[in-house]
Amino acid sequence: MAGNSFGKLFKLSSFGESHGTAIGGTIDGCPAGLKIDLDYIQQELNRRKPGQSDITTSRNESDTVEFLSGIFKGLTTGTPIGFIIKNKDHQSNDYENLKNSYRPSHADYTYEKKYGLRDYRGGGRSSARETACRIVAGAIAKLILKEKNIVIHAFVKQVGDIQVPVNYDKLDLSKTETNVIRCPDEIIAKKMIEYIEKIKTEGDSVGGIIQCVVNNVPLGLGEPVFDKLNAVLAHAMLSINAVKGFELGSGFDSVKYKGSELNDIFAIDKTSNQIITTNNNSGGIQGGISNGMPIYFNVAFKPVATIMKDQQSINNLGEEELLKAKGRHDPCVLPRAVPIVESMAALVLVDFLMRSQSDKL
Amino acid sequence: MAGNSFGKLFKLSSFGESHGTAIGGTIDGCPAGLKIDLDYIQQELNRRKPGQSDITTSRNESDTVEFLSGIFKGLTTGTPIGFIIKNKDHQSNDYENLKNSYRPSHADYTYEKKYGLRDYRGGGRSSARETACRIVAGAIAKLILKEKNIVIHAFVKQVGDIQVPVNYDKLDLSKTETNVIRCPDEIIAKKMIEYIEKIKTEGDSVGGIIQCVVNNVPLGLGEPVFDKLNAVLAHAMLSINAVKGFELGSGFDSVKYKGSELNDIFAIDKTSNQIITTNNNSGGIQGGISNGMPIYFNVAFKPVATIMKDQQSINNLGEEELLKAKGRHDPCVLPRAVPIVESMAALVLVDFLMRSQSDKL
Amino acid sequence: MAGNSFGKLFKLSSFGESHGTAIGGTIDGCPAGLKIDLDYIQQELNRRKPGQSDITTSRNESDTVEFLSGIFKGLTTGTPIGFIIKNKDHQSNDYENLKNSYRPSHADYTYEKKYGLRDYRGGGRSSARETACRIVAGAIAKLILKEKNIVIHAFVKQVGDIQVPVNYDKLDLSKTETNVIRCPDEIIAKKMIEYIEKIKTEGDSVGGIIQCVVNNVPLGLGEPVFDKLNAVLAHAMLSINAVKGFELGSGFDSVKYKGSELNDIFAIDKTSNQIITTNNNSGGIQGGISNGMPIYFNVAFKPVATIMKDQQSINNLGEEELLKAKGRHDPCVLPRAVPIVESMAALVLVDFLMRSQSDKL
Amino acid sequence: MAGNSFGKLFKLSSFGESHGTAIGGTIDGCPAGLKIDLDYIQQELNRRKPGQSDITTSRNESDTVEFLSGIFKGLTTGTPIGFIIKNKDHQSNDYENLKNSYRPSHADYTYEKKYGLRDYRGGGRSSARETACRIVAGAIAKLILKEKNIVIHAFVKQVGDIQVPVNYDKLDLSKTETNVIRCPDEIIAKKMIEYIEKIKTEGDSVGGIIQCVVNNVPLGLGEPVFDKLNAVLAHAMLSINAVKGFELGSGFDSVKYKGSELNDIFAIDKTSNQIITTNNNSGGIQGGISNGMPIYFNVAFKPVATIMKDQQSINNLGEEELLKAKGRHDPCVLPRAVPIVESMAALVLVDFLMRSQSDKL
Repeated sequence: MAGNSFGKLFKLSSFGESHGTAIGGTIDGCPAGLKIDLDYIQQELNRRKPGQSDITTSRNESDTVEFLSGIFKGLTTGTPIGFIIKNKDHQSNDYENLKNSYRPSHADYTYEKKYGLRDYRGGGRSSARETACRIVAGAIAKLILKEKNIVIHAFVKQVGDIQVPVNYDKLDLSKTETNVIRCPDEIIAKKMIEYIEKIKTEGDSVGGIIQCVVNNVPLGLGEPVFDKLNAVLAHAMLSINAVKGFELGSGFDSVKYKGSELNDIFAIDKTSNQIITTNNNSGGIQGGISNGMPIYFNVAFKPVATIMKDQQSINNLGEEELLKAKGRHDPCVLPRAVPIVESMAALVLVDFLMRSQSDKL
Repeated sequence: MAGNSFGKLFKLSSFGESHGTAIGGTIDGCPAGLKIDLDYIQQELNRRKPGQSDITTSRNESDTVEFLSGIFKGLTTGTPIGFIIKNKDHQSNDYENLKNSYRPSHADYTYEKKYGLRDYRGGGRSSARETACRIVAGAIAKLILKEKNIVIHAFVKQVGDIQVPVNYDKLDLSKTETNVIRCPDEIIAKKMIEYIEKIKTEGDSVGGIIQCVVNNVPLGLGEPVFDKLNAVLAHAMLSINAVKGFELGSGFDSVKYKGSELNDIFAIDKTSNQIITTNNNSGGIQGGISNGMPIYFNVAFKPVATIMKDQQSINNLGEEELLKAKGRHDPCVLPRAVPIVESMAALVLVDFLMRSQSDKL
Repeated sequence: MAGNSFGKLFKLSSFGESHGTAIGGTIDGCPAGLKIDLDYIQQELNRRKPGQSDITTSRNESDTVEFLSGIFKGLTTGTPIGFIIKNKDHQSNDYENLKNSYRPSHADYTYEKKYGLRDYRGGGRSSARETACRIVAGAIAKLILKEKNIVIHAFVKQVGDIQVPVNYDKLDLSKTETNVIRCPDEIIAKKMIEYIEKIKTEGDSVGGIIQCVVNNVPLGLGEPVFDKLNAVLAHAMLSINAVKGFELGSGFDSVKYKGSELNDIFAIDKTSNQIITTNNNSGGIQGGISNGMPIYFNVAFKPVATIMKDQQSINNLGEEELLKAKGRHDPCVLPRAVPIVESMAALVLVDFLMRSQSDKL
Repeated sequence: MAGNSFGKLFKLSSFGESHGTAIGGTIDGCPAGLKIDLDYIQQELNRRKPGQSDITTSRNESDTVEFLSGIFKGLTTGTPIGFIIKNKDHQSNDYENLKNSYRPSHADYTYEKKYGLRDYRGGGRSSARETACRIVAGAIAKLILKEKNIVIHAFVKQVGDIQVPVNYDKLDLSKTETNVIRCPDEIIAKKMIEYIEKIKTEGDSVGGIIQCVVNNVPLGLGEPVFDKLNAVLAHAMLSINAVKGFELGSGFDSVKYKGSELNDIFAIDKTSNQIITTNNNSGGIQGGISNGMPIYFNVAFKPVATIMKDQQSINNLGEEELLKAKGRHDPCVLPRAVPIVESMAALVLVDFLMRSQSDKL
């Protein structure tokens, strides 16, 4: 059953395979009157696109978005925004030899069994190429959030064992885009890059953790009881390829503390005269609803399954086969995943902003 | 906006506050002809109900479910199954003194600000009491899964720092229900219970991790790209009160390994002659779709926010106040949360079983 | 698949059979802070309830609604409003003899074949008894509409061949409730009542047309392109038992005119200085969106299928049988259907009011 | 809020304006393994496209569909089918003079007020041009229905006062495509065409009625209580531009008969030994669920609002203005609407076929 839409009021429906004619989608529910900054959207796409640095795949795609509807004289009209991104550098022949193979920890096997057939070129629909569409919708969502002064920052917190030892509040997030790994701590960033280069030389891959922070979220976003803001954020993040885990605020570490240690104590902020909490283990969400503090969460990515090493497998005739290393790959998807995490967070937040409009009479 | 329904084809819509007349719900989309085993459903409710042991809250509720529709002569009719659970031991007066207070790390503050008013009796809708409705629906979902031989087992893997050092595949899960903490490792269980008793004496609370395992899941459940099976499981789990994190298979630990170490290698199982993977870091899901291996995931719970210690806070007049310890509480929600995790997993799986019926022509 | 919910943002999920313990439902998405006027809701239920006059069925139900959640100190809290209406006078034994029979033009046959079994007591879920739940939700929706000064009036326009020859704008709708047939033209009303009494004596039934008018609808409700306001109104009306047709404004008669005759010409209203149309063949909706003029539409009801005459049929063994007239019935459902039509219209309008909140930035 | 999707399991999301770059959409939920007959889809588009005869608008569009995803080697893959149809002959300059005008009985006024701005070129999103996307999805739905031997036939039953006096069962529907008005009664067809030609000469427009018949529908499609098959069909039909009414089976005429006259009596068909009804006033649907008899319904279309006559109006400055006749138009949309009605019916039926898969355990 249809699972290619995300959002209730601000809804992205996407389509497209890695090596088809184009990928694309529709954004339905975007309010009218929003100024569409095409340069900004393209910049966001550039943050995700392949070939942007030595530590990403060398596939060459300009990832240029073409809008087909929903925008008139630079403004959204309230009608659906249709868009496509043409696929260019799809070396489909690279994949002809894989048509009977099941690559380990890819979706080849599950897609073929689920549907009875599969588009085996570059992973087809299961390729992370589809995330470019999320960036387009996410960029438009961010333009809406900007109007409300809501800002989303994601960054690479950990690669392999190399991690930034502190949370967002101890970091200068304006530095995230100053290096190719997108880590605001420059010393750690350097180590991460060196490590990824080493992994690349080995023909291997490595995972990591992205932390995402959202500032200036209004109080009251999130819905009891099944659509808690954290629940939908988790849904959003786990829908991204290679994601294995999600944690809000103090997350898995919460188990190490007692309630008396972990509870966030309310206080009055002397400057703003607003209610705040003196710590933020809740990650900005209490009872599934934003409490006005920064929202932050971590997203764990596994090492990408494509590696430049021979691997043993089974093909669709049930025979053993040795998969030879071939093609191109990302030794570490983390830097390209940063804007994807931000985009999905933006889609969630805009949707809940709209949903909250009918909270009170 | 409406957020009190879960599921697309097998859908639970629930209602009810901690101290209202009753909680309840509707299950819409249950196939006709299912034999309803009332004893089993009540047993499941008993696993969650308060007062079941010394390490749970002493609130006294029989949690007896009354079915109002959708069942005729012991069989489901295909029409919605309405049910209620009356609230009995609601000592609402305990809460009158809290009507202006915001308890730390509870939902008091966010509900009041979101809606402009709140039912302050026992947390109202934000109370975990609503999870009893999830158990009812989950038990019916499990009855459907039984027909397909699909079995769900959750257990307490960690409390505070005390953890079972291995995963489900090294444990005898039939022992989970033999102790009040619901941990299949009896030695660890004993330590956990002792620790919780100590925490209870301190008037404090503690969190932990539940691991959930699903066996015999058919290949092909889960939908590209936004409704990956893991994404909806994460949504389901993060919708449970006090949950702070979710991880599938190798989860957050995935970052410690290289792709060549973590990839799940396909092989032929000698007994069944089926394709399996020799390890299961994927946690039974690849590309968002079940691959026939056991599904397993971890869910992190924070220490429950209610503690029997005085806490500093701010009230809704913006004044500082000292919240005095009072009432009843669970020092550790983990044992009661085991059936909730199972129930939410069951709801997800039944929904995706139904969704998969239209995968192929 | 689940089809017992209506609405996107203001959502009713209902359950219940004619002869089960109770019918009921949940309203999810009602804004917080609405004052619940219980007397008004009961009054609305009384307009639909059986036994209210000589021309309705003699089934005796008080149709008393019990609210279980979502209301605190007389105000809605923003959380789901659960409610039940107990079934009292269910003479189920009347139906035991019908358990193998398929009554003509009832849902006995289709339910049994769809689901493999059926609750044969009084039509089970297919009974119009479920519409009482629509009244409860509709009454709450009307309370919201009242706050916006939006008023819904339905009335009986036609019974058999007896019809009010003019539309709403030539009628004094305040007279609708002055007679048991709910027709504002007193002379026609009298004829209708006499005709229904005659039909009742014959043991037969008769249908008719209800016209529904909504005044003061704000401009801009309705969504392109599939959720046009008229499309969702049609959906709502055709979901009512015994409804066979829906037409907006000039409706089926539109085919008799040329475009130049039928087009609604814009003008400036001298009093309000607002744009109006000089006629209203559009029925208040243009391009699927309300234009600020009164919305009006007609709903056609067939004669109720239950009659007090013997009828030939086939039973579920494939044998011919003569169904003997027995039990109670409505010779004409129109007067009881008036509040149902209004309720469904109210549900649609409140939902679209909420949906329109995100039209513009 | 998002209203540009139709269907629950087989879902069309469409986008596009009359004079934008392209219109298009996504079909999500199409089962894998369906053979896509491109010629058939194009043929269906040709039945709707402008310029196909003297009695349709002279706008010149090839309406060539380009599929971008979801099809691999001629078969659907189970992933979303993205498609676009480029706009070619968009004489947008024709509309520059209309940017401040509100054409009578068009959506100019409502769109502008709802959204605060509008794409005034050719009606923008409100143009019936979007229905080409419905044809694409409908054609694919029909390919699925063909596999189940389900056949949909719509035809023009009435134009102005000229009507076919009998229902589908007395007609040879294979003749529908033999004339440009798509009426299977050749003599009536000739009269209709002559009448439309006369209307065209006058610069006026005329409406009519389309009857749609579906044969071989399996028993059991449709869901209690809000998603009755007839309710969703009504929704689908009223979502088509210019539609003013819908009636199922005996429809509005039902009010002329008594229950004893209108009830459909069950019988055993001697040939098939199946249960049938001896008449079909129910139109193939009882209690909202298909009963295995042919489904038939009527759809009323108003005369298209665009006429070649000067009309008085108000512009968006609140001034009176005389709109001069200009451009191109359809004097009667009925023949082009026949495939649109069929397409929407096909979308509904495929969706309910899928929904019915989980009726029974």
